[in-house]
Amino acid sequence: MIPGRVLDHIYSNQGRYIEELKAFLKIPSISSPEHAGDVRKAAEWILDRTKRLGFSGRIFETSENPVVFAEIGQHDDAPTLMFYSHYDVQPPGDLENWKTPPFYPDVRDGAIYARGAADDKGQLFCTLATIGSVMAIEGKLPLNVKLLFEGGEEMGSPGLEKFIREHIEQLKADAVLITDAPKYTRDIPAIYYGLRGGVAFQIEVRGPSTDIHSGMFGGAVVNPINALTRILGDIKDHRGKIRIPGFYDHVRDLEEWERKEMASIPFDGETMKKYLGINEFATEDGYTPMESMTARPAFDVNGIAGGYYEKGMLWSIPDKAGAYLSFLLVPDQDPEDVARHFEEYVHSRAPEEAVVKLSKVVSFDPVIVPRSSKVIRVAEKAIEYGFGRKPAMIRSGGGIGVAALIRKMLSTENIVITGWNDPEDNEHAPNEHFSLENFRKGMITTAAFMYGLADSKKRETTISVANDTT
Amino acid sequence: MIPGRVLDHIYSNQGRYIEELKAFLKIPSISSPEHAGDVRKAAEWILDRTKRLGFSGRIFETSENPVVFAEIGQHDDAPTLMFYSHYDVQPPGDLENWKTPPFYPDVRDGAIYARGAADDKGQLFCTLATIGSVMAIEGKLPLNVKLLFEGGEEMGSPGLEKFIREHIEQLKADAVLITDAPKYTRDIPAIYYGLRGGVAFQIEVRGPSTDIHSGMFGGAVVNPINALTRILGDIKDHRGKIRIPGFYDHVRDLEEWERKEMASIPFDGETMKKYLGINEFATEDGYTPMESMTARPAFDVNGIAGGYYEKGMLWSIPDKAGAYLSFLLVPDQDPEDVARHFEEYVHSRAPEEAVVKLSKVVSFDPVIVPRSSKVIRVAEKAIEYGFGRKPAMIRSGGGIGVAALIRKMLSTENIVITGWNDPEDNEHAPNEHFSLENFRKGMITTAAFMYGLADSKKRETTISVANDTT
Repeated sequence: MIPGRVLDHIYSNQGRYIEELKAFLKIPSISSPEHAGDVRKAAEWILDRTKRLGFSGRIFETSENPVVFAEIGQHDDAPTLMFYSHYDVQPPGDLENWKTPPFYPDVRDGAIYARGAADDKGQLFCTLATIGSVMAIEGKLPLNVKLLFEGGEEMGSPGLEKFIREHIEQLKADAVLITDAPKYTRDIPAIYYGLRGGVAFQIEVRGPSTDIHSGMFGGAVVNPINALTRILGDIKDHRGKIRIPGFYDHVRDLEEWERKEMASIPFDGETMKKYLGINEFATEDGYTPMESMTARPAFDVNGIAGGYYEKGMLWSIPDKAGAYLSFLLVPDQDPEDVARHFEEYVHSRAPEEAVVKLSKVVSFDPVIVPRSSKVIRVAEKAIEYGFGRKPAMIRSGGGIGVAALIRKMLSTENIVITGWNDPEDNEHAPNEHFSLENFRKGMITTAAFMYGLADSKKRETTISVANDTT
Repeated sequence: MIPGRVLDHIYSNQGRYIEELKAFLKIPSISSPEHAGDVRKAAEWILDRTKRLGFSGRIFETSENPVVFAEIGQHDDAPTLMFYSHYDVQPPGDLENWKTPPFYPDVRDGAIYARGAADDKGQLFCTLATIGSVMAIEGKLPLNVKLLFEGGEEMGSPGLEKFIREHIEQLKADAVLITDAPKYTRDIPAIYYGLRGGVAFQIEVRGPSTDIHSGMFGGAVVNPINALTRILGDIKDHRGKIRIPGFYDHVRDLEEWERKEMASIPFDGETMKKYLGINEFATEDGYTPMESMTARPAFDVNGIAGGYYEKGMLWSIPDKAGAYLSFLLVPDQDPEDVARHFEEYVHSRAPEEAVVKLSKVVSFDPVIVPRSSKVIRVAEKAIEYGFGRKPAMIRSGGGIGVAALIRKMLSTENIVITGWNDPEDNEHAPNEHFSLENFRKGMITTAAFMYGLADSKKRETTISVANDTT
């Protein structure tokens, strides 16, 4: 499926590629305003690299972090493949929980440890490295390639829709490969045909204009933390149902065939519970853990703060309290519709003596892509080639905003959503990592997908016997 | 009521006393483990001062912060008065909210600004300064005096009960003056005949063993913030009622005469709302703000934290979330009884997939002292002398743990609970202050109370005409 010398180049250059990945991971491209400079530095690092690979490209500004777009078109008759990954990363959280610092990449136990190693800089670089190996041996790629590398995915891609709308012609492609998801398990790679959507909010409740003595005033003055917990505390009931009126209106029920298929996919609950450090799953009543994680909506408060918890301060009513919270949505929920229901719910629960400010941070649609497209078949073969095992066709719990945007705005259904890291690689958690083996397998799979896609097009458009390049 | 030369000494030495108070306020005697050294330093500062005033005293260790106890007995036939104040202070909270740093006392606009200026180091020092002025002029006090200065009040006096139990004989007194409360309003001084009690908890909820990606696992893994808000959010309903079964069992209803008396005390709701920065009071249904603040129980979450709110981190399920919370109690509620009901409630609301740890931090009884004791009458006269206005007899919202302990353990009802600062002095809040005028008036009142008490005893025990020392 891949020219043998390309395969050899991939194997022979692993050490160099990992050193280069380290340099990339050293840039703390955290999706937050104070790291805007680092995000830009990462964008420039990528752009420089694509130029050295012969691409023409540039950095495009968006309302938030920039997008790197680059392309190379060496063929008139070959299909065009667009790769998508993102180069921004989650904040590292509490540094004390990291064994080695998040932006000092460390290779140990067969893996590279750093924030972004798996999600998603490691996977982005896997694409660049593969292109590098092909170019080094062949001087050209087997098809036309576009690279769409985003800098705001961890913020929910706030600037991406506008960018895509304004560059629709430039972004047109015959197939899109999104590598921003883990394998299903360490042993089983995956192709995701469904992704949850999401809508996230910041809520801030204000009470007195300054912290006041609860002993003196308690019972007669609104307490913003009390109010906030009252607003948030009953959103999900003890059966895992979300109690916001209208919330489930457009939730597409799981069909019997899909539940059966899901049940047939190996699910090692004990290992997952051990990895997560939980005694039991807390699923929605009547649904399995896998169904609850991928095909049912969810509600999580991601962060909350009020008063001085860390200092153990008692007998005080703080001036304010706030939370970040998010809903995961499934087809056919509409984030705008859910946001409206949620806003109404908040206002029905908020005490009139407090000032409640609700700001929508981000939203993106859930998506389901056709499972029978030609590119999916090519991807299945490439993954089986690279990982030695047929991928599971599954739905993912984590939304990748771009998938719905690309489907809707580029009007293409030829989308493959996949990725090369293990689910235990601590994405969004301390000690994130990416195994060196998965990195190499990911490169081989990426090359196999490029050659496979070019080849399938040839088969379609010529009557000559396809050239088996493996 | 006071020898004229003492009065003159008080007036003449204000500047010096304020300088000395500044030195005292500079010691950051915050009630928290990392400031144990500063708390001790404050204790030593006080002890040194009492020794220079001719007292014999020492620092007593408790299970928490030390107690300073000192006494002087120059009379066989005079009554013994014990003063109580505390020298520990609340944490300052967010330093950005302070116009001048909390431990760099600043005199401006007729007040001294610092953490502890009003609560309670300023009031403690007012007692010491008064004793200093009397001693400077007279060489002796008009009665025997004991000083009980506590270092753990802001933690809820955790070590005080044991200390009192072990020193009951030494602590015996004919009257106890507790200065750790504000005047009723800027214009109206107050004597408090009732204090709310309290019981406070730390609650910590643990979910997964590390932060995890909510997009991937949301809907199937317990979220500790969701669980915590669910536990806390419904404790108080929208009518201000606490919904914990059994909570109101022993709440003594306000009697009609008391509600009438409370209603007759001037209450400037508009000014208080402006001071607090609120649009409306949020009282318990059917009760006035004053009733709700002083004679009804209350529930407040004082601090809450989970995830990384400040960093705006989304799409994460944190490993834990926690809160500090407290109940204000009224007669005849028993903190232990309330704690039991609360623990049951928490366990009924906690999801079984989470680990909930509930720790009682502190508790103290509510108290009502007789309003018709002789010492109350003496205090009324002294306050009218010092402040030019008869004090209001009111109940306080804020618990002062020592009052109930003294009443119960020293079997005395001759307790006066009062104080000299204004209610707008930002106790437990940024920019705490104490007006210089109140400091001076507090000194004069303290002196008047000592002379008045000595004098009333003379009237009782001799038939000689009382010597009017004013």
